[in-house]
Amino acid sequence: MKKIINRPEDYTDDMLRGIYEANKGKVKYVNDDLRCYCTARKKEGKVAIITGGGTGHLPLFLGYVGENMLDGCGVGSVFQSPSAEEIYNISKEVESGAGILYLYGNYTGDIMNFDMASELCQMEGIETRSIVGADDVNSNKDESKRRGVAGIFFMFKAAGAAASSMKSLDEVLASAERAKRNTRTVGFALTPCVIPEVGHPNFTLKDDEMAMGMGIHGEPGIWNGKLKTADEIASESLDTILSDMPVEKGEEVALLINGLGATSVEELYILAGSVFKILDGKGIKVYRTFVGEYATSMEMAGASISIMKIESKEMKSELDMPVSTPFYTQV
Amino acid sequence: MKKIINRPEDYTDDMLRGIYEANKGKVKYVNDDLRCYCTARKKEGKVAIITGGGTGHLPLFLGYVGENMLDGCGVGSVFQSPSAEEIYNISKEVESGAGILYLYGNYTGDIMNFDMASELCQMEGIETRSIVGADDVNSNKDESKRRGVAGIFFMFKAAGAAASSMKSLDEVLASAERAKRNTRTVGFALTPCVIPEVGHPNFTLKDDEMAMGMGIHGEPGIWNGKLKTADEIASESLDTILSDMPVEKGEEVALLINGLGATSVEELYILAGSVFKILDGKGIKVYRTFVGEYATSMEMAGASISIMKIESKEMKSELDMPVSTPFYTQV
Repeated sequence: MKKIINRPEDYTDDMLRGIYEANKGKVKYVNDDLRCYCTARKKEGKVAIITGGGTGHLPLFLGYVGENMLDGCGVGSVFQSPSAEEIYNISKEVESGAGILYLYGNYTGDIMNFDMASELCQMEGIETRSIVGADDVNSNKDESKRRGVAGIFFMFKAAGAAASSMKSLDEVLASAERAKRNTRTVGFALTPCVIPEVGHPNFTLKDDEMAMGMGIHGEPGIWNGKLKTADEIASESLDTILSDMPVEKGEEVALLINGLGATSVEELYILAGSVFKILDGKGIKVYRTFVGEYATSMEMAGASISIMKIESKEMKSELDMPVSTPFYTQV
Repeated sequence: MKKIINRPEDYTDDMLRGIYEANKGKVKYVNDDLRCYCTARKKEGKVAIITGGGTGHLPLFLGYVGENMLDGCGVGSVFQSPSAEEIYNISKEVESGAGILYLYGNYTGDIMNFDMASELCQMEGIETRSIVGADDVNSNKDESKRRGVAGIFFMFKAAGAAASSMKSLDEVLASAERAKRNTRTVGFALTPCVIPEVGHPNFTLKDDEMAMGMGIHGEPGIWNGKLKTADEIASESLDTILSDMPVEKGEEVALLINGLGATSVEELYILAGSVFKILDGKGIKVYRTFVGEYATSMEMAGASISIMKIESKEMKSELDMPVSTPFYTQV
């Protein structure tokens, strides 16, 4: 294991200390618990949006807490859920009279803990709604059982924009639902990553192999085989996405090319170029493109392609809403 | 070699096609040459700033072309200099009456080609000044022979801010000089990277080894040895920086923790935490912190620590000036 760390068991808390110190006045923690990550710039009367999940996916999840995006994040250990109590404590801090949207990935532990936190809130008269990201097409044929991966960024963006426009809790939920309904992702890994406290990779790939459809925790994909070219990978990924969610000629999409951690930005743009060629050939217009690391798996090499179909002008406004967090800024 | 690419010989141009397509209206190329990378939003009467260098360091160099930063970038092949003709063609495009500052890294090929471009410009009455980044302390005892690495970001930021405030060519140069004088960097690698057209790493490190002082092209460092902890690496790096450029108790600095490509953002913040502890112990105040990938070496694992000593209020204004490029946004 080659990582710049101190003790593996301190990985998450050491990281959090660095983040808080680097971003004073922007984010803070409550209840004397580093894992209760909250905005330091609460806006009264706004629907609060809280996410959460395991460490190891930066900027997912906590990186999207900030202006016009999210208000809090429960931080679990590496690839572990935050506790219900932590989510509840964050909820008490960031709620400001308009209710809370819980928006996180479709993973069993997270669902259990967010649901418990929701019950605790409701007992105190705080209204909550919940929605999970489940955009990873290759993870299951059943849409409701799919894992949430990089496409959750579009849900954060939509819900964050709606909330910052002072919309109601149900309207914010509706924006998140619309982004979810229109978003699909396909990902693939070239190398594994190492959980610090485990110390070795949980799977192996040969020197010339890739894993199509692999999850961001190393969940098995649909095939392991010879590394393909950027053009071939883009073509297979878009076939998968567009068979699951047809996009007609003339329709517009948002495109997210996401690096899993160890893949260079140069390669992400090469892949973006391959995707542009295919979409252009189909007459599908790209309204806005996002390229970079949006949801990683520590030092895993690989990438994912997310497409969000744009079905209304409002979706464009949500995409274009300026945001500013310690990890992601858009003007 | 595990990369998401098409033909290795198309690496740079495929990457550029992706970048231009993703950022229409923001950047463009001239003279029908993808390597002549220019802002699409030229500002009349402003000093133009042009950088350049080899591909493989994104967001360095071209990633800093944009609002309130740079105006053009000569793009070389992987780890190669752009040509004098390309730099000259970019110069003709972005110059807008106030002269041009060439600001790039201290590498022989780049110096030769920028100097030739400068002569071509002068023959046409276009005024130019040149300055090279040379912040890598471990690369040479002689300051003038040091390599330019991530610390050049602070020079871009300073010069970009001065130019956008419509200062004169010599004033913009002075801002870049002041940032240079006050900036030092120490870097270290955990794994090598692979030049696409070569296909194999140009050096090896054992599974438990790191290379202190290694350059961003894999130039040998000052020692290869057992991987140290984040605290130990931070301590040695700051000792090196602060013996070369003393910072007194009570003085302020800007801090840049830069990932070389394959190192996770989690680790960068762990390293940031280690640096904060040491600076705090010395009574040195961190005015502003930058954490992320600012100057990479494709898929090299490792990081660098840059410190810029702040000697005036004006340096803070330059640091705080909002910028927006396709690769870097600060509000």
